[in-house]
Amino acid sequence: MTYGAHARQGASGAEPGRSRPGGRTARTREAVRQATLEELAQHGFDGLTVEGVASRAGVHRATVHRRWRNAAGLAADALDLASDEPWPVPDTGEVRGDLRELTTMVAAHFNDPRDGAVSRGIVAAAVRDAETARALHGFLAGRHRQAAPVVERAVERGELPEGTDAEEVVRTAIAPLYYRLFISGEPVDEGTAVRAADAALAAARAGAFV
Amino acid sequence: MTYGAHARQGASGAEPGRSRPGGRTARTREAVRQATLEELAQHGFDGLTVEGVASRAGVHRATVHRRWRNAAGLAADALDLASDEPWPVPDTGEVRGDLRELTTMVAAHFNDPRDGAVSRGIVAAAVRDAETARALHGFLAGRHRQAAPVVERAVERGELPEGTDAEEVVRTAIAPLYYRLFISGEPVDEGTAVRAADAALAAARAGAFV
Repeated sequence: MTYGAHARQGASGAEPGRSRPGGRTARTREAVRQATLEELAQHGFDGLTVEGVASRAGVHRATVHRRWRNAAGLAADALDLASDEPWPVPDTGEVRGDLRELTTMVAAHFNDPRDGAVSRGIVAAAVRDAETARALHGFLAGRHRQAAPVVERAVERGELPEGTDAEEVVRTAIAPLYYRLFISGEPVDEGTAVRAADAALAAARAGAFV
Repeated sequence: MTYGAHARQGASGAEPGRSRPGGRTARTREAVRQATLEELAQHGFDGLTVEGVASRAGVHRATVHRRWRNAAGLAADALDLASDEPWPVPDTGEVRGDLRELTTMVAAHFNDPRDGAVSRGIVAAAVRDAETARALHGFLAGRHRQAAPVVERAVERGELPEGTDAEEVVRTAIAPLYYRLFISGEPVDEGTAVRAADAALAAARAGAFV
């Protein structure tokens, strides 16, 4: 699972031997989620349909329609499931490495052909659909909280000022990547990621987030 | 004209007595642009139609259809026209005031009921339509260039290090606002704007953009 807007297929909750509450219902939900991600990767949100997901997941179309209603419901539920998953927060021992790892992970995620297509599809869906937007906002609020220890540990180590707003440092580090990807349409590479991390760190050191 | 994604109606190129090349053709284009902005403000990109714009602009539907083709063509041309307009770059005499004015202007623009609705409509359109995206990217590239003197003057005054990438400071200052508005769905107010400007400035002072 990366910082991006969905879970990687291999990192999903379907590890062998892992017992999930709900049994068959949970397996159906997971199958529908995986099919939703695949359909998003291949066709984007405009091509995401109850029919396509049902067929790919091997689930009755009526079942998908009854529980997820439409493309927005499918995208929102895939995000809700991804929010519940554990996510490996960077822990290199110093804040510069952690923040660079965080932003580099976001850049790599969006530059990955499959993962990037899925997450671009979800952001595009959220811009025009309120239910997907609610799910994306909840997902990202969770990611901000999960990444906050990167900054909190730095404060404990004395690398950053007491009272630094950890989530605001995280937002500031990743915002330039999203701005380029979804607003200004400029390229995002590892250099962009490193510069964004270093800029957020310099601002945090100067006390801009206290 | 603000840093946001379109021209205010009152600040358009149609000032009395201003002669524009093209005469009747230019007037038609301007009327269609204003009608496009009004339709976007009221109905969003999903409600933007050749019929609605033609009717509001008092221009034959066939003319609008022939010259602008569809909603994407209308939105893209409105942006292209906005790109040509002069824009008052902040000049308070010191870089902190200039950057704060810049980000506060962006926040106020998106919080304005009409202007905000238009620009949200354009960004939403750009996320799903390649022609609108191309126009938005061109518009913002122009705005980055136009705002760069805020940083370049600061370098000349010795407020920022020699060799600071002016456009990157501008992107970094405004990115957190766009991230909140279009990605994480968090509120943007004057405090957000001031903090984003101050963070970009602190990073620039520390040499993060050299």
